[in-house]
Amino acid sequence: MTDTPKTGKDLARKPRGFPDHRESLLRAEAEIITRITEVYARWGFEALDTGAFEYVDALGKFLPDTDRPNEGVFALTDDDEQWIALRYDLTAPLARFAAENWQTLAKPFRRYAYGPVWRNEKPGPGRFRQFTQCDADTVGAPGAHADAEMIAMTAQAMRAAGAGDGEFVVRVNTRRLLDGVLSEAGVSDSGAKLTVLRALDKLDRLGLDGVEALLGEGRLDESGDFTKGAGLEEGARTRLLAFAEAGAGTRAETLANLEKAAGGSEAGKAGLDELTAITSGLAAFGVPESDVLIDPTIVRGLEYYTGAVFEAELLTETKDEDGNPVRIGSVGGGGRYDDLIARFTGQSVPATGMSVGVSRLVTAFALQQDLTARSGPIVVLNLNREDPSEALKLASELRAAGLRAEPYMGGSGMRPQMKYADRRGAPAVVIVGEDEIEKGVVTIKDLKAGAAEAAAIKSNEEYRAARPGQFEAPRADMVARLKEIVEAAE
Amino acid sequence: MTDTPKTGKDLARKPRGFPDHRESLLRAEAEIITRITEVYARWGFEALDTGAFEYVDALGKFLPDTDRPNEGVFALTDDDEQWIALRYDLTAPLARFAAENWQTLAKPFRRYAYGPVWRNEKPGPGRFRQFTQCDADTVGAPGAHADAEMIAMTAQAMRAAGAGDGEFVVRVNTRRLLDGVLSEAGVSDSGAKLTVLRALDKLDRLGLDGVEALLGEGRLDESGDFTKGAGLEEGARTRLLAFAEAGAGTRAETLANLEKAAGGSEAGKAGLDELTAITSGLAAFGVPESDVLIDPTIVRGLEYYTGAVFEAELLTETKDEDGNPVRIGSVGGGGRYDDLIARFTGQSVPATGMSVGVSRLVTAFALQQDLTARSGPIVVLNLNREDPSEALKLASELRAAGLRAEPYMGGSGMRPQMKYADRRGAPAVVIVGEDEIEKGVVTIKDLKAGAAEAAAIKSNEEYRAARPGQFEAPRADMVARLKEIVEAAE
Repeated sequence: MTDTPKTGKDLARKPRGFPDHRESLLRAEAEIITRITEVYARWGFEALDTGAFEYVDALGKFLPDTDRPNEGVFALTDDDEQWIALRYDLTAPLARFAAENWQTLAKPFRRYAYGPVWRNEKPGPGRFRQFTQCDADTVGAPGAHADAEMIAMTAQAMRAAGAGDGEFVVRVNTRRLLDGVLSEAGVSDSGAKLTVLRALDKLDRLGLDGVEALLGEGRLDESGDFTKGAGLEEGARTRLLAFAEAGAGTRAETLANLEKAAGGSEAGKAGLDELTAITSGLAAFGVPESDVLIDPTIVRGLEYYTGAVFEAELLTETKDEDGNPVRIGSVGGGGRYDDLIARFTGQSVPATGMSVGVSRLVTAFALQQDLTARSGPIVVLNLNREDPSEALKLASELRAAGLRAEPYMGGSGMRPQMKYADRRGAPAVVIVGEDEIEKGVVTIKDLKAGAAEAAAIKSNEEYRAARPGQFEAPRADMVARLKEIVEAAE
Repeated sequence: MTDTPKTGKDLARKPRGFPDHRESLLRAEAEIITRITEVYARWGFEALDTGAFEYVDALGKFLPDTDRPNEGVFALTDDDEQWIALRYDLTAPLARFAAENWQTLAKPFRRYAYGPVWRNEKPGPGRFRQFTQCDADTVGAPGAHADAEMIAMTAQAMRAAGAGDGEFVVRVNTRRLLDGVLSEAGVSDSGAKLTVLRALDKLDRLGLDGVEALLGEGRLDESGDFTKGAGLEEGARTRLLAFAEAGAGTRAETLANLEKAAGGSEAGKAGLDELTAITSGLAAFGVPESDVLIDPTIVRGLEYYTGAVFEAELLTETKDEDGNPVRIGSVGGGGRYDDLIARFTGQSVPATGMSVGVSRLVTAFALQQDLTARSGPIVVLNLNREDPSEALKLASELRAAGLRAEPYMGGSGMRPQMKYADRRGAPAVVIVGEDEIEKGVVTIKDLKAGAAEAAAIKSNEEYRAARPGQFEAPRADMVARLKEIVEAAE
């Protein structure tokens, strides 16, 4: 343990990778979660929350070794000396829950879940150690139509989150097809398999020549770095390239291409049958061709997938705060994992699921447009230090009428109060001093109209005389006048 | 590290104190959070989320010692060897955030926050290690009217969450008044102070005699346990009991009683002035007398409060699943903490806030009534193993019409599918076989009406002939007929 400062300003700092989030981002995130979980519920999934902690051995993927128990996850020993860790995704806790309650659940078990997950990784720009996922899974569903449902629902979730025609695509593949093609190309060693899959995954970025180099001897990139290739013969390379290229077209066209490129082996045939059944399911669910493509290069990282795999990608390019183009890319995906629950139960339980990376979607839409832009509350200035009652009453009246409003609560005078209202993005301020009380009126300043009028004013004298945006209203009209201003500001 | 099983069924277990939550509880929790944060937003507070982790030294209350770093919080060392811990409330992270960003914030800073907090305590019945809070705070607000706003908003939050007239009360006090009374009674030692405050806090449960015993020599309870008292003389006891009793009445009456019982010292006068100003603020906010009482026995546990303190209590008694009466009691509270942020900034920053224990409110309302009871999705039976397309199409049609629906995704036959629909709480099932397709119809079974009709049927033969609740409908009428059934079931 290093020495850390124990008092004073240095204390006020945040562990890396856990950024503070403010209003507009949080409203966008809540809105996206609401929209996506509404889709899940409409598709017949029910909510489940399993809490933040699991026993480390139940998480499976990251078994701690005694030296580095924190590797990949945030782990600690509980008071019974067992290791517990924060969940790193929502699938592992689901598998534990389903296994623990398998006897009493209605099967198939269809659940959705959302919330933070934690990864103990090195933080960096855009790389956080806590982020929000929103998942749905069907446990106990063996058929390809259950995969088709997950894929169709992923497309619906993208649309619900705000992505329109041509702004996203869900790419589908199956592990079985990849296995078939690799065995036909004579790639059996697991290291070689990985090299080939990684090469195929880069078709988008490197083109056919680049991928062929990576399948063969290797590739020298522009920076002069050499990546060692898979060392395949020309025949195998040609076969794999034809396979990788098969995905350009409608789902039916891709299936026909794949039949030629990969239909030779048993595993290849099984993969094709699976994709054919999924395609038929997608048609039954009415999924447009442009929402879901079959893409034989999709691999997905996690090792627990046993069949269908898919990935949702945002196609739109957005600009960051400095105006640089940003491509968000993958915002979710999923697949079939028939062996994961067997870890607990000892017998295979067919399951398929999807996960949407809410934090990534929020970034995308926060960059594109503020999903939830709205003005701040109306600020009622507090001009009577002795007795603020009048300001409190006015604010209460506005709140009771459904308007967002606050009386100024600080200890400062008129000018800082006006500045505060400005910084809060208030659409208007209400001013009530002794004059106003006596006359039975309030003074309202419309801050947006006021700013527009003020822009045309040349001198301080003129400004003070004109009082841009400012007017008196009878107390009885206050709510109605402010509602007009708020509606105009939205 | 003890040996833990690495495979098989034993793996599927959950760390203690982190229960899994299912649909109806989660929907109730989400609904309560939505309603309460709508109040906060209408009162001019903006959202903030600070993430799960803070540096342990920033949390302040629970500085880890090297032997027991987990005491009270879930703590671990980050890869830079510094201790980080999961937040145990939402106030400490706010203080860190406000201090870290003080220069750039619009002041006063008004934020709300909600989410899980974690306490590394011994779990037990109703005692969890993760629960949900929903807070609002104003940082940079020195006046009693800012406290009045918190108290008034707490009452509003209780009403928004579903508590009606007489079903809750917010009890208000101030630390200054307590200090004044204690000094007048000659109690200066901090241990003795604590004993006295604990005794006063028990007026409700033990009555005047019981409290007087605890202020004097001590008290023997019914189980025969003796609690040592504060050892005060009769004069001091009488004075303190008069103070404790002062709270029975309207806010104005209580203030008058307190003037007599506690108005003698400087601190007592300051406390009375503060309560008088808060009472005036509550009147300006239009808070009914029965929503907020002044109660001189309210203490609040946390040591960082410097002025006003208050506690929200549910008054209704509910019944648990076994029919036993349950009193939820305190569901939130708050107060003024002018010194907390000074830990970081070195200078006092006046602040006041409130916290609602969402998990406790959910328990209360889940016991009283299911806030969010609703039926399950419509289940479209899947009778064609070869090609489930028809079931997928029908489910899509229902979803597109806004109904919650799912095609059966398991691998079982007709009877298990009906049983599944029943267990999901489906209002209806849709059956479509080859007959129905040929005739252009669907068979619908209204499960609720069916159950009612079936109850009157005596024999299996009669049951099969009557097919209770079951009817055929033209395919074009399917959506309309199911909407009728769903509406009737809600």
